[in-house]
Amino acid sequence: MNFYYIVIVIILMLATSACWKAWKVPRRHGKSTIQMLSTENHAENIETPNHIPKYRRVPTIPELTWSVRAIGRVECSYLNKFSVPRQATIHPTNKTTNGTILSTSAPEIAKLVIFPEYRACLDDLKGFDYLWLIGLFHLNSGFKTHIHTRPVSPEHPVPSEVGLFSSRSPHRPNPLSLSALRIVNVSTAEGVVHVEGVDMMHDSPILDIKPYLPAFDSFPEARSGWMDLIQQDYMQARVTGYQNIVSTRGARFARAMEKKAARAEEGLKKDN
Amino acid sequence: MNFYYIVIVIILMLATSACWKAWKVPRRHGKSTIQMLSTENHAENIETPNHIPKYRRVPTIPELTWSVRAIGRVECSYLNKFSVPRQATIHPTNKTTNGTILSTSAPEIAKLVIFPEYRACLDDLKGFDYLWLIGLFHLNSGFKTHIHTRPVSPEHPVPSEVGLFSSRSPHRPNPLSLSALRIVNVSTAEGVVHVEGVDMMHDSPILDIKPYLPAFDSFPEARSGWMDLIQQDYMQARVTGYQNIVSTRGARFARAMEKKAARAEEGLKKDN
Repeated sequence: MNFYYIVIVIILMLATSACWKAWKVPRRHGKSTIQMLSTENHAENIETPNHIPKYRRVPTIPELTWSVRAIGRVECSYLNKFSVPRQATIHPTNKTTNGTILSTSAPEIAKLVIFPEYRACLDDLKGFDYLWLIGLFHLNSGFKTHIHTRPVSPEHPVPSEVGLFSSRSPHRPNPLSLSALRIVNVSTAEGVVHVEGVDMMHDSPILDIKPYLPAFDSFPEARSGWMDLIQQDYMQARVTGYQNIVSTRGARFARAMEKKAARAEEGLKKDN
Repeated sequence: MNFYYIVIVIILMLATSACWKAWKVPRRHGKSTIQMLSTENHAENIETPNHIPKYRRVPTIPELTWSVRAIGRVECSYLNKFSVPRQATIHPTNKTTNGTILSTSAPEIAKLVIFPEYRACLDDLKGFDYLWLIGLFHLNSGFKTHIHTRPVSPEHPVPSEVGLFSSRSPHRPNPLSLSALRIVNVSTAEGVVHVEGVDMMHDSPILDIKPYLPAFDSFPEARSGWMDLIQQDYMQARVTGYQNIVSTRGARFARAMEKKAARAEEGLKKDN
């Protein structure tokens, strides 16, 4: 009898472990999607110190390219690139200066849909408040070394032109996006992360997701050059509310809507 | 006579503008280095809402890859990947728990060398305190969906395994690095940015540089999941000093050095 008991216990254990494996999100070890595209050795073009180990090294020179692959995609309501708010995390209500509601009164909750092979990586992300989304502005294909700034207000004069790397313009040599998004919900099994404050277009490729770590990423006192006064305004607005921000895009939209309404009214008058 | 004066003034103006153009860092409009590598239309594989404009759109699916190009390279003293400190911005003195100095007593000042065609983009970056460096861990080629954590201290228990996307591990599907670095000096003409706190290897490719904007990037109160207690320690240490941080890497290094010293002493004794 004792022997039978042992056999039954072993069978039960095997069955439990099989169920557990079937239920769990599968784990795997994968190859990185990175791949060096130009593999010729350009070592003769660059001075490499002799003490650097030669082990699979190609000195980094301008001709080198690598491939990146989408690990997921953004699903949201911004269907063309002109409807996307800039750095929306700090604009939860999407309101303009004079209270016009741009899209919805509730903050836009976007979905980051992760492809099946990377879903298990989402484990333990739920405990974090924010995540870093590195994505691709995949419809942008050019860049300029300087960008024209938009005048904000007479009290906050900005230079008319600034260097590209001192702006967050989406037209860059490598059009990578970087945004801190508030995590609303994480579902590892479905591979979906619900986030607030996405500033990407619908269907933008996701390249990487990292946790937001305040000790490494948060420097609230940092000066921000030509944008310093504007940034101080935004920082203030995060505490006191967003109604007082002079949002150029919002103001322009509101003006356009007013004009449209006025024209419609005129049309009605003419018809009468 | 009046006519001659006008001609001379015009010639002087032309000469001045020519000198100015020759002296200035050249501006240019460039094509992005991004390039879609797989251009077949996979539209039949995915449900695309009908209202999405079809204009140069390929729905984002796992097979899509893009190419990225180095816009510069990191020059620092970390010649292999095991000597690189993690998130070094908050470790300015590189000291371990018991005061052992790891590399130098002064913080490591690294050089970000930007290639000539992108140098003009560095204009106006000098006014910022921090920059975001997005680079490539170009020697890493694989990833695991879960990573093993290192025990820190008995007071701060961590799970033995966490999902990849809730860690800042350098082994990722797209091995992109993200670090906030303190700007020490910017030289647009030479294309060099001196920064403090680099956590990349010598010769790592730079993909993008963005300014650090506190209103968009700084969330000091954010919870950080399984790393919450450790992060609180680091945040505290940024104010009170770094001596009290339990740095596993530093502690291990110090232990190794002690063992080495002990062994050397034993060897000396034997010789005598």
